[in-house]
Amino acid sequence: MTNKNIKSLLLEKGAEIVYIKGFNNTGINDILIAAGVPKGSFYHYFESKENFGIELIDHFLPRFLTSADMYLEKETTSYIQNLHDFFTDFLTFIKENNFVGGCPIANLSLEMSDLNEKIREKLKEAFELMNQKVVLFLKKAQENGELPKELDLDATAQFILNSWEGALLRMKVTKNGDPMKVFDRFIFDKLLINK
Amino acid sequence: MTNKNIKSLLLEKGAEIVYIKGFNNTGINDILIAAGVPKGSFYHYFESKENFGIELIDHFLPRFLTSADMYLEKETTSYIQNLHDFFTDFLTFIKENNFVGGCPIANLSLEMSDLNEKIREKLKEAFELMNQKVVLFLKKAQENGELPKELDLDATAQFILNSWEGALLRMKVTKNGDPMKVFDRFIFDKLLINK
Repeated sequence: MTNKNIKSLLLEKGAEIVYIKGFNNTGINDILIAAGVPKGSFYHYFESKENFGIELIDHFLPRFLTSADMYLEKETTSYIQNLHDFFTDFLTFIKENNFVGGCPIANLSLEMSDLNEKIREKLKEAFELMNQKVVLFLKKAQENGELPKELDLDATAQFILNSWEGALLRMKVTKNGDPMKVFDRFIFDKLLINK
Repeated sequence: MTNKNIKSLLLEKGAEIVYIKGFNNTGINDILIAAGVPKGSFYHYFESKENFGIELIDHFLPRFLTSADMYLEKETTSYIQNLHDFFTDFLTFIKENNFVGGCPIANLSLEMSDLNEKIREKLKEAFELMNQKVVLFLKKAQENGELPKELDLDATAQFILNSWEGALLRMKVTKNGDPMKVFDRFIFDKLLINK
């Protein structure tokens, strides 16, 4: 394998372990063993565990961003429906995982924001990128006449994204989809109504 | 000190460390040192770190429940306003802590729900107790004519609590009060309106 491939493999296997065990609770050796890479070679690929954490965020983020782009581009008569389908896709994924894991960006945020400033800055950027996607859905819906012209799109997106993260967090505890059902009902049947 | 006092001290000091560093990242010796209790005596007070985690939840929970009771009992013309004041109190506390820490129940949830079933069960109960308090605010407001009679109080409380946790999570990342401002605006100016 090339160095680039080994690095990708370490990120992929590391992501799987961190997703369940947490960042601090995951030893560098756990990752090397899972990837089948010789002990002691971690620092050949990453300057530090901090740097690994930052690259991990770039590894997790496309799950959200690429899926959002797909639903943003999907032909539709309702971009609110597309946003709904986008969130439903995540719920399906989380159900298939028996409600284990949740949102990796949120997990890292709660664990690392107070401990590492560089990781926090990166997480802040990640949330902003995620938020911009939600804004785009709302903007398309607004242009499509589905939302009031005066709606503050950025604030609405922030509220939706944070509430969604809150529902994901709660689902880790309940191990059922109820928190997302409630999210769905309040966001899509009450908030995102053109009135 | 009595055994009971030492146990309380271990919970108090342990809570402070876990609040910042996380549960897995906090060693038993860190707690003993902070409490000035002899090394090796932890298991005299707690059967296991798991049990310590469970007692920690009981240690954190009254911050929410007792404060809720205070605002539930506070004489008022508006229980929605009391609920608002209750949340504002937390925001003040979090601001004073420079947005470090957030909600200890949420932190433990994201970290431990997938790793320890007993701790998850305890966290689930904790959230339900918190939720019941929010239901009580809404019920008093409803009886007071501030909310529609047909409002589903439990679902509304779930949505509010989860969205609040989402805002707290995001504040750990932004290190400013913006996510709570947005929460405030959507919950109190849009959702909790009698129409």
